[in-house]
Amino acid sequence: MNFRSYTVEFIGTFFLVFTIGCVLLLGGDGVINAIAIGFALMVMVYAGGPVSGGHFNPAVSLAAVIRKSLPSSEFIPYVISQLLGSAAAVMLVNYFSGHVENYEGCAFNYFPMVAGEFLFTFALCYVVLMSATTGKTRGNSYFGLAIGATVTVGIFAAGSVLCYGAFNPAVAMALGMMHTACWQCVFATIAANLIAGVAAAAVFNYTNPDKIEINL
Amino acid sequence: MNFRSYTVEFIGTFFLVFTIGCVLLLGGDGVINAIAIGFALMVMVYAGGPVSGGHFNPAVSLAAVIRKSLPSSEFIPYVISQLLGSAAAVMLVNYFSGHVENYEGCAFNYFPMVAGEFLFTFALCYVVLMSATTGKTRGNSYFGLAIGATVTVGIFAAGSVLCYGAFNPAVAMALGMMHTACWQCVFATIAANLIAGVAAAAVFNYTNPDKIEINL
Amino acid sequence: MNFRSYTVEFIGTFFLVFTIGCVLLLGGDGVINAIAIGFALMVMVYAGGPVSGGHFNPAVSLAAVIRKSLPSSEFIPYVISQLLGSAAAVMLVNYFSGHVENYEGCAFNYFPMVAGEFLFTFALCYVVLMSATTGKTRGNSYFGLAIGATVTVGIFAAGSVLCYGAFNPAVAMALGMMHTACWQCVFATIAANLIAGVAAAAVFNYTNPDKIEINL
Amino acid sequence: MNFRSYTVEFIGTFFLVFTIGCVLLLGGDGVINAIAIGFALMVMVYAGGPVSGGHFNPAVSLAAVIRKSLPSSEFIPYVISQLLGSAAAVMLVNYFSGHVENYEGCAFNYFPMVAGEFLFTFALCYVVLMSATTGKTRGNSYFGLAIGATVTVGIFAAGSVLCYGAFNPAVAMALGMMHTACWQCVFATIAANLIAGVAAAAVFNYTNPDKIEINL
Repeated sequence: MNFRSYTVEFIGTFFLVFTIGCVLLLGGDGVINAIAIGFALMVMVYAGGPVSGGHFNPAVSLAAVIRKSLPSSEFIPYVISQLLGSAAAVMLVNYFSGHVENYEGCAFNYFPMVAGEFLFTFALCYVVLMSATTGKTRGNSYFGLAIGATVTVGIFAAGSVLCYGAFNPAVAMALGMMHTACWQCVFATIAANLIAGVAAAAVFNYTNPDKIEINL
Repeated sequence: MNFRSYTVEFIGTFFLVFTIGCVLLLGGDGVINAIAIGFALMVMVYAGGPVSGGHFNPAVSLAAVIRKSLPSSEFIPYVISQLLGSAAAVMLVNYFSGHVENYEGCAFNYFPMVAGEFLFTFALCYVVLMSATTGKTRGNSYFGLAIGATVTVGIFAAGSVLCYGAFNPAVAMALGMMHTACWQCVFATIAANLIAGVAAAAVFNYTNPDKIEINL
Repeated sequence: MNFRSYTVEFIGTFFLVFTIGCVLLLGGDGVINAIAIGFALMVMVYAGGPVSGGHFNPAVSLAAVIRKSLPSSEFIPYVISQLLGSAAAVMLVNYFSGHVENYEGCAFNYFPMVAGEFLFTFALCYVVLMSATTGKTRGNSYFGLAIGATVTVGIFAAGSVLCYGAFNPAVAMALGMMHTACWQCVFATIAANLIAGVAAAAVFNYTNPDKIEINL
Repeated sequence: MNFRSYTVEFIGTFFLVFTIGCVLLLGGDGVINAIAIGFALMVMVYAGGPVSGGHFNPAVSLAAVIRKSLPSSEFIPYVISQLLGSAAAVMLVNYFSGHVENYEGCAFNYFPMVAGEFLFTFALCYVVLMSATTGKTRGNSYFGLAIGATVTVGIFAAGSVLCYGAFNPAVAMALGMMHTACWQCVFATIAANLIAGVAAAAVFNYTNPDKIEINL
């Protein structure tokens, strides 16, 4: 039990989801939201990465377990910390926004939604494993930029045209709690996210056969 | 007394506040202000960080004193340098803008304003301590990007919907001097900023128990 | 035959072209497309660079062969991987967009189109060779940012005013398959891209006479 | 005589000015121009920095001579290379734009124009010297981002409200050749730029007394 890492995961997921909630429910410009959210993930990855690995995302933690950069015994506590951080952020956003009811029906068809979530969650987990867990690029300074920018790209490209652009079960849960998406869409999103994490870990293991087990 | 550091703190705070004043009073596009201001902080942190630590913010200096990356005897001279840099920038902006009277009443309710300032000043000080003062990530190249982008995220997310988005007592003072906020809001903002600095230092000390006392 | 590198080239080109297709055919804001596309290239270069070199572009692979950071026997398999990744992305985008017919006639005059494609493909290959294949700056963390941002600059500056802003034969082919450009323009673009790759390699070899043959 | 460096200075200044000309004369969105131009400088600094120092700006070269990171005998050839690169880019832009006459009278008052150019050219030269010429931060990966982003900040903050936002005599000359500014404004801008370079070098020498003479 490493409560320091859990604290860092809680804080990082809190600020990621709080930023999402603020730009979605309290204002913000739709075009630039992608940059705000990607930057929020980036700064928390840079701050927390050296302590906890900087996941803030159960799909990333699952990929890290399969790739063996996170001990499997840490998976459940990591996910709980992430979901608690997300829930705390949602409660604060809901309080500030006056618990607005902004659900307007399911915005996406099923297949594009699942495909969009799968593809960019795959990209996100692939970028995390390739940029932050290989011995060859140990100590690089770009891991946070690459990880945050992947979410920015996913939101620009697929978010709001194919899918909700969560790419993260903790964010998907938050969208449900903020009444932005129905729970059926949330669970489909979460399933797509987790499957994408498994797929990314498999591709990583294939393309990096001589991987050393390290976490940046 | 390290006048080289004070010069660097003066210059960095001057350009941060001058940029804020230009985009607020002389023009600029509201959506992109967050990027301009975050970049202004980033470039000054990269330039001045290796000399003075690159604080440009009394709340960050307070957090650095508690975390022991700044000697406590330097706190007062640092803050004075920062406030002088801020005041010089405000005088220039006020001169160029013709001392416009742009105060339109208090824009925010008290609790959201204090909460928004607390949360993102906490995030800012947390990112500073985690990315620029740990031995484990010494010599990294991302500290300026992470620190500047945190302010960008805070302005995108909370600035102008919850609070003024100062996250910095020297900036809050400048908003008062530019007649953008009333002095009561300024003092509440400053209090929230300083308390956030203390909280961030406490969390840093908990999550980094084996910290080495260095400043990047 | 290095199938790990081909997998990485396929994935990177897929996500680059999928992002382009999504922002062009499925929505997205024209001003910010340049950032989305440049970031997509950046994250894939950071993720895949240490495995395959992170080309995702036949013109870059050609420049790398001339500069000798890619064995010439790898050129054809690299290009095939890139074209397959591009084609797979186009098929998915065409499926999601309902195979819209968005061709509206040739948008550009011949000379500006070729000149724009030549100039910024030259800049792209020049930046790749200078930032990612010299011994002097080995292990730097900026190569992905520099490479992705070059495409962003090219799209901002020349894309849609002088040329299609492909700067990449695999992207040019995708524009043809998505019915965004006629095939005559596509082939002129591809020719300009490849000639630019040769020119950039020649300039690199002149300005870096003591180059060590390495690939970051 | 180091013709390799002159080639790199020519190429970098060419692409910087060509980008400026394209976004000013051929289209582009005013808000985002600041990002396009800053990124153009950034990618050329990252590409060319290790060969020539990556100045692309006579004011930076002047500051580098005073700070002794550029031999004084190289100053004239560097400036000539920069001015030739700028002139070549202008000729191409003028050709593509049909030599439009876009001069609409002097846009700025004298004192704000000189002050804006002085302040952000000072910031630019200060950031260059602090981030790219000190032994303490040798080998860092942020110098290009810091340098390019300083120009972005300057354009966001002062460009088009106080001054033309050149911050560079080679760019100022280009604005005159593109008929965007009158030659009297151009010469005032150039004078402000060069004085700012001297001032930045003086501040650098004061704040870095134990500087080692290196160029990144």
